[in-house]
Amino acid sequence: MSHNTFGHLFRVTTWGESHGRALGCVVDGCPPGLKLDEAYVQAFLDKRKPGTSRFVTQRKEPDQVKILSGVFEDDRTDGQVTTGTPISMMIENVDQRSKDYSEIRDRYRPGHADYAYDQKYGVRDYRGGGRSSARETAARVAAGAVARRVLGEDVLIRGAVVQIGPHAIDRDAWDWDETAKNPFWCPDAAAAARWEDFLDETRKAGSSAGAVIEVQASGVPAGWGAPVYGKLDAELAGAMMSINAAKGVEIGAGFAAAAFSGEQNADEMRMGNEGVRFLSNNNGGVAGGISTGQDVVVRIAIKPTSSILTATQSVTRTGEEVDVRTKGRHDPCVGIRGVPVAEAMLACVLADAKLRHRGQVG
Amino acid sequence: MSHNTFGHLFRVTTWGESHGRALGCVVDGCPPGLKLDEAYVQAFLDKRKPGTSRFVTQRKEPDQVKILSGVFEDDRTDGQVTTGTPISMMIENVDQRSKDYSEIRDRYRPGHADYAYDQKYGVRDYRGGGRSSARETAARVAAGAVARRVLGEDVLIRGAVVQIGPHAIDRDAWDWDETAKNPFWCPDAAAAARWEDFLDETRKAGSSAGAVIEVQASGVPAGWGAPVYGKLDAELAGAMMSINAAKGVEIGAGFAAAAFSGEQNADEMRMGNEGVRFLSNNNGGVAGGISTGQDVVVRIAIKPTSSILTATQSVTRTGEEVDVRTKGRHDPCVGIRGVPVAEAMLACVLADAKLRHRGQVG
Amino acid sequence: MSHNTFGHLFRVTTWGESHGRALGCVVDGCPPGLKLDEAYVQAFLDKRKPGTSRFVTQRKEPDQVKILSGVFEDDRTDGQVTTGTPISMMIENVDQRSKDYSEIRDRYRPGHADYAYDQKYGVRDYRGGGRSSARETAARVAAGAVARRVLGEDVLIRGAVVQIGPHAIDRDAWDWDETAKNPFWCPDAAAAARWEDFLDETRKAGSSAGAVIEVQASGVPAGWGAPVYGKLDAELAGAMMSINAAKGVEIGAGFAAAAFSGEQNADEMRMGNEGVRFLSNNNGGVAGGISTGQDVVVRIAIKPTSSILTATQSVTRTGEEVDVRTKGRHDPCVGIRGVPVAEAMLACVLADAKLRHRGQVG
Amino acid sequence: MSHNTFGHLFRVTTWGESHGRALGCVVDGCPPGLKLDEAYVQAFLDKRKPGTSRFVTQRKEPDQVKILSGVFEDDRTDGQVTTGTPISMMIENVDQRSKDYSEIRDRYRPGHADYAYDQKYGVRDYRGGGRSSARETAARVAAGAVARRVLGEDVLIRGAVVQIGPHAIDRDAWDWDETAKNPFWCPDAAAAARWEDFLDETRKAGSSAGAVIEVQASGVPAGWGAPVYGKLDAELAGAMMSINAAKGVEIGAGFAAAAFSGEQNADEMRMGNEGVRFLSNNNGGVAGGISTGQDVVVRIAIKPTSSILTATQSVTRTGEEVDVRTKGRHDPCVGIRGVPVAEAMLACVLADAKLRHRGQVG
Repeated sequence: MSHNTFGHLFRVTTWGESHGRALGCVVDGCPPGLKLDEAYVQAFLDKRKPGTSRFVTQRKEPDQVKILSGVFEDDRTDGQVTTGTPISMMIENVDQRSKDYSEIRDRYRPGHADYAYDQKYGVRDYRGGGRSSARETAARVAAGAVARRVLGEDVLIRGAVVQIGPHAIDRDAWDWDETAKNPFWCPDAAAAARWEDFLDETRKAGSSAGAVIEVQASGVPAGWGAPVYGKLDAELAGAMMSINAAKGVEIGAGFAAAAFSGEQNADEMRMGNEGVRFLSNNNGGVAGGISTGQDVVVRIAIKPTSSILTATQSVTRTGEEVDVRTKGRHDPCVGIRGVPVAEAMLACVLADAKLRHRGQVG
Repeated sequence: MSHNTFGHLFRVTTWGESHGRALGCVVDGCPPGLKLDEAYVQAFLDKRKPGTSRFVTQRKEPDQVKILSGVFEDDRTDGQVTTGTPISMMIENVDQRSKDYSEIRDRYRPGHADYAYDQKYGVRDYRGGGRSSARETAARVAAGAVARRVLGEDVLIRGAVVQIGPHAIDRDAWDWDETAKNPFWCPDAAAAARWEDFLDETRKAGSSAGAVIEVQASGVPAGWGAPVYGKLDAELAGAMMSINAAKGVEIGAGFAAAAFSGEQNADEMRMGNEGVRFLSNNNGGVAGGISTGQDVVVRIAIKPTSSILTATQSVTRTGEEVDVRTKGRHDPCVGIRGVPVAEAMLACVLADAKLRHRGQVG
Repeated sequence: MSHNTFGHLFRVTTWGESHGRALGCVVDGCPPGLKLDEAYVQAFLDKRKPGTSRFVTQRKEPDQVKILSGVFEDDRTDGQVTTGTPISMMIENVDQRSKDYSEIRDRYRPGHADYAYDQKYGVRDYRGGGRSSARETAARVAAGAVARRVLGEDVLIRGAVVQIGPHAIDRDAWDWDETAKNPFWCPDAAAAARWEDFLDETRKAGSSAGAVIEVQASGVPAGWGAPVYGKLDAELAGAMMSINAAKGVEIGAGFAAAAFSGEQNADEMRMGNEGVRFLSNNNGGVAGGISTGQDVVVRIAIKPTSSILTATQSVTRTGEEVDVRTKGRHDPCVGIRGVPVAEAMLACVLADAKLRHRGQVG
Repeated sequence: MSHNTFGHLFRVTTWGESHGRALGCVVDGCPPGLKLDEAYVQAFLDKRKPGTSRFVTQRKEPDQVKILSGVFEDDRTDGQVTTGTPISMMIENVDQRSKDYSEIRDRYRPGHADYAYDQKYGVRDYRGGGRSSARETAARVAAGAVARRVLGEDVLIRGAVVQIGPHAIDRDAWDWDETAKNPFWCPDAAAAARWEDFLDETRKAGSSAGAVIEVQASGVPAGWGAPVYGKLDAELAGAMMSINAAKGVEIGAGFAAAAFSGEQNADEMRMGNEGVRFLSNNNGGVAGGISTGQDVVVRIAIKPTSSILTATQSVTRTGEEVDVRTKGRHDPCVGIRGVPVAEAMLACVLADAKLRHRGQVG
C-alpha cells in the first residue's frame, strides 16, 4: 500500500475528487482470459450508489462505469475478456451542484480531513471534501468487481451491517437473505426495524450515526497470505482501515478474544469428511497470517458521519473561531454504503493473496 | 508491507526462526548522522526480553544485539552514527533447549500457525514455532530503536496494557509512571494488583489470558500520512495486526465510535496559544489518513496464548485425532511482552511517515 | 518498477492500448502547489505526436490531453496547481481506422511482441500492437511534463538523436539549437542532411532504420540516487530499457569506457569558483549510483522498426509458415519520436530521485 | 528495486561495508522445499573470491558463507531445504588490514563514489570504499545461488568476459569450455593469451582496464516478464547497471542494432520440431519485455578500476587540490570478478520473473 495504490500483484490505483470531472481506477496485474464487461462491474456499483433509500445521501449520481482498456473481444474469445494489461475504469461525476462552497472553503469541518489536508498540502479541492470524500470508494467497488473475477466462483464474499449506533444485531438471528430485504444490509429483520426508527430520529435531529460492518469470505483455501508483514490479516486490517470513517478493524473474535481464556479461544480441530474440521472460528479464518480454510471474518468500526446539521465548534483557515453546520446531501450513516466497499476491499486483498500464493510456493 | 519487509522509505526486513542460529533485521533507509550504538538498542530489547517476571516466559535469552553494518565512528563524528547504508542487526539464539520436539512436529497446536504453515509450505521449522514464533518480534524492537532516532526527541512513544482477560483498567486512574512499577506495563495501580491475582490463577489453571495494549505517540506534527491507501491509520492497522496474536486494531475511539452520535464524535476545534486546539481526540490523532497534531492513539487486541497446558482437541499431520497439551516455557499472557513490540511498530510507522512526508510535499 | 507502474515516490501508472478507446496515466506522489494545466502538458505531447514530417508515422492523432484529477484552481492559487492527489490524464484515440486486422491477428510479425504476448497471455488486443504499441509512450510524455514541474527551472532536460542507421553525428559539431531546425532532433546540421537522404532511401526500400538517442540533464545537484539497487543509473537503465524498441542503455562514456585505461577514464577534479570542477564526464554525472553535480548523460540504442513492407518469414498462431509484410502507417525510424519519450523518462526518474533524496537524508 | 533491495516476489536485500564486521543478504520469497546448504552457495562464492590469480585483488578473504535462517532439515526432508521463510546469509570480513586510511578519508578518489557519497550523506565509512565497495557483490552471488535453485535444472546460466581493454574476443571462436581454463572467463583461447600480456602490462604501468561481460540464460521458457515497466529487459538493465563500475547494458544485438536495417534485425521464425524456431536472436531472447524462449543474452560494459597507482588530480573534503595515488590490493580489471556477479543478477531477475509469471497469468 502506498499513496493511492494498494496490492502487490493485483494492484489497484484510484484517482479523482468528489467534484472533479471524473474518478476512476487502474487495475494492474489482473490475469488474462477472465470475463469482464461494464454490466458486470455496474451491478456492484449500483449496490453502492447514492439515493437508493432515505437513509443514504440524496446526491444524484448514476455512477456509470466505462472500461477504457484491458479488455478485448474478438471471435476467439467468449465475450469480452481481460487481456492481462491494465484495466482502466472511469466514472464521470454528474451531479456536481454549482453551489456556493465558500463556507467549507475556509472553515474546517470537525472530524473531517479538512484541517489535516491543509496542514499537509497547503492547497486542496475543498468541494465536497475533494479527494478525502467517500466518493473515492466508487473506484474501489469497480476494482472489487474485477477482483471477484480473479477469485472465481469458489470464493463467496458477502457483507452486512451488524450494528448501527448503539444497536447491535442478534447474531443468532443472522439470515443472509434478510440483507437484501432492508435498506441497511441487515441480516436480522428485527434489528432492521429498530434501525429504521433510530435513523429516522437521527436524521430529524440533524445528527448522524456510526456502524459496524462485517464482511465474510467463504471458500478461501488454506495457505493464502505471506508472513510476517504481509500477513493476510495485516493486509486486511490496512485495507479496511483505509476506508473513509473506519476507526477499527477486527478479525474473527477480535477484541472479544482479549477477554477469553486460552481454552475458550482455541479453535479445536477434528477430522471431517473433507479433511480438517474446526470446532470454532475465533481466528476468523487466519492463523499466523495464513488462511486456514475457514471463513475469513472481518469487522470494521465506522464512525458517525462528520457532516451534520447540528452546529459544532471549529476554526477557520485564518484562525478565527466559528460554528460549523454542514448542509447538503449527506449519509446519516455512512456505514450502510460502506458494505459494498468493504466487500470490494476484501475481494481485492484476497485476489492479491491468491495470485501471490502461486509465486510464493513455487 | 510485503512478506518479511515493512515500510516504504524506512524499511525493515526481519529474518530468523525461534530455534535457529540467530534472528535479526536489516533497517534500510535510515538517514545518516543519527547516533546509534548497541547499548541504545539493547535498552529496548531488555524491556521485551524473557524471564523478567513470573508472568512471562522463563526461556533464558539475553537477547544481546550486534550491529553489523550501517554505523561508523571516526573522529569527525560524535560517537557512532548512522551512515545512510543498511543497518544489519543480529541476535543469537542461546537457549535452544535440545529437547524432544516430536510432539509438536506432527501435531497441530490449536490456535497456532502450525496447520496453516503446513498447508502453505509443506515444510517448516517446527521447533518452538519456527518463523511464526513471537521471538521474531525481538528484531522489530531493535528496528524500533532505530526508528526512535529518526523521530528524534520531539516524538514521545509510550505503551501500556489496558486490559488483561476481562479486567480493564480505569482510564481515569491512568498514570504513566505506574507502568514502570508493575510487571504488566499497567498505568493503573489498582488494576495491576487485580491482574496479579488473575494471572496467578490463570497460570495455575494451565490456561492463558488475552490482553489489550494501547500505544500513544505525542509530538507528531500535523501532516504525516499519505492518503488514500497509505493512510497513517491504515499503515498502523497493518503494522499492528502483523504482531503475533493480534486480532484487532483501533484508532482513537475505535469501535466505541460506532455507538456515538455525530456530535459526540466530532473533535471540535478552538484556537489555543499554539494554534488549533482540539476539544477531544476521538479521531486518535489521524483524520483522512493524515496526522492532526494530536496524540496518535492505537489499541491492539491480543488473543490468549495458544500454547496452554490444558488439553485441547486437535489432529496430526497424517489426519489422526489427538489431544494436545503444550508444555514448555510460555507466556501466560503474551500481551505483556507485546508492549515494547507495539511501541516499536508505532515508531517504525511514524519514522517512515516522517521521511515520506518530506518527499510528498516537495 | 512493476508491471505498469514506475517510480517510488513519484509514481507513474500508464494504461491503454493502441486502438482502444483511450490511453492515459495516473501520476501519484506529485507534490502540491506546482503549476500544471493542459496547455503545459500538451506542448510536450505535440513534440511526440504523429504526422509532423514524412519521417514519422502518418497516423492522424491530435493526442489531446485531458487532466481529470489532481489539479485545482481557486482564487487563492496562482492559476491551476497540483494538490498532491493523483493526477489522472487521458488521451482519446481518434484515428483507429476500421481496417481489416485479420492478417496480424493470426500472424506473428517478426521482431514484434506478438508471439511473446500470445505465449504469456493467450489473448491480446492485436489491433496496432495493442498494449505493446509505442502509442503507450504518449502517456509517458504526459507524465514527464509533470515531472519537469517537480524538477523546476533549475534542471534542464534535453534530447537528441545522435545516430540513425550507421550514420553517427560529429560530436564536435554539436549545437543544441540545431535540434529544433530539422525533423530528427539532430544537433549536427550536416548529419541531418545525410539522414534525410538515408531515410528517404530506407522508406522507398520498404525498410526501416535504428537510431541512438542521447538525453542529458543539466542542473542536477550532487547527491540524488539511492545505492545500491536504487542507484540513479540503475533506475535510468531500467526506465530507458522499458521504452519500446530499446536494446541498450549507456551512461556517460558507456561501452567506450571498457576500452579506456584507468587514467583515461578518471574524471579528475579541481577546485572551481563554485566548488568542485570535473575535468571530464566519463561517469555521465553518476558515481556509485549518486549524482555528482555534472550533467547526467544517457544514450539509448533503438532497433529498427519491426513493421516493414519487405516480406519476412514468420509463422501463424496455428503453426503455419507464412511471409509477413506490414502495411500501414509506420515510423521508418522510431528513434526520432523516441526523443521526447526518453526526455520524459529522464525527467520522471530525476523527479523521483529528487523527492526520495529528501526522505533519505533526513 | 529500491535502496538495498531488489526483486518483487524473489526479493534480495544486501547489507555490509567493505571493512565492517561482516556483510550479507536476506533472500525473501524463495519457495519452500528447495535443496539449499552452505556448500552449494559456497561454490559460487569461490568463483568470485579474491586472490585466485594475479589478475585480481590479492586481498585474502575466504568469503565463507553462513546460512542463518530459512532452511531446515528433519528426517522428512531430503537434506536441508528452504522453508519459504527469509534466508539470511552472512560472510564475515576477515582481512580488514589495520592500515592507515587517512589518505582516502579526506581525499576523493577520482571515478570513485567518495565525493558523491559525501555530498549525499555527509558521513561515510571510507575504509576500502565502505558500502560502495565491490565487496557488496559477494552478497549478490550468495543470493544468486538461491535464485538458481528457484530456476531449477532447466535454466542454464553462464557468463564470460568478451572484451578487456580494447581487445574483444572473436565470437566465432566461442567455446564455453574455455572459460574454465583461463583466469578471465574468456571463451576464446587466443584472446585469453592476448589479455594475459595486456593485463600484465597494465598492472606494471600502475593502470587498470575496462571490460565487457556477457551473460546468457538458456532454457527460459517463453512468457516471463511483465510489460511495460517491469519488462524483463528493463529489469535486467536495472539489475546489471547496479553492479559496481557498470556503465552500459545491452540486450541481444544491443547498440549494434541501431545500425541495422529492419530486415537485418528481424528475428524471422519458422516451425521446428519443438514449435517455433527463430532464425536469429537479435532481440536477445526478449520481445516486448517478455521472454521468447530463445537464449537471454545480456552484455555489460565495465569501466576500468578507478583505484590506480598512477597519480590523478583530485581535491580533498576541505577543498584543497591534491594528487591521488591509490595503493593497496586492487583488481586491475574488475570485469573479471564481475562475471559471477552478473550471472547472479541474471539468476535473480529470472527467478523473480518465474515466480511473478505464475501470479500474472492466473
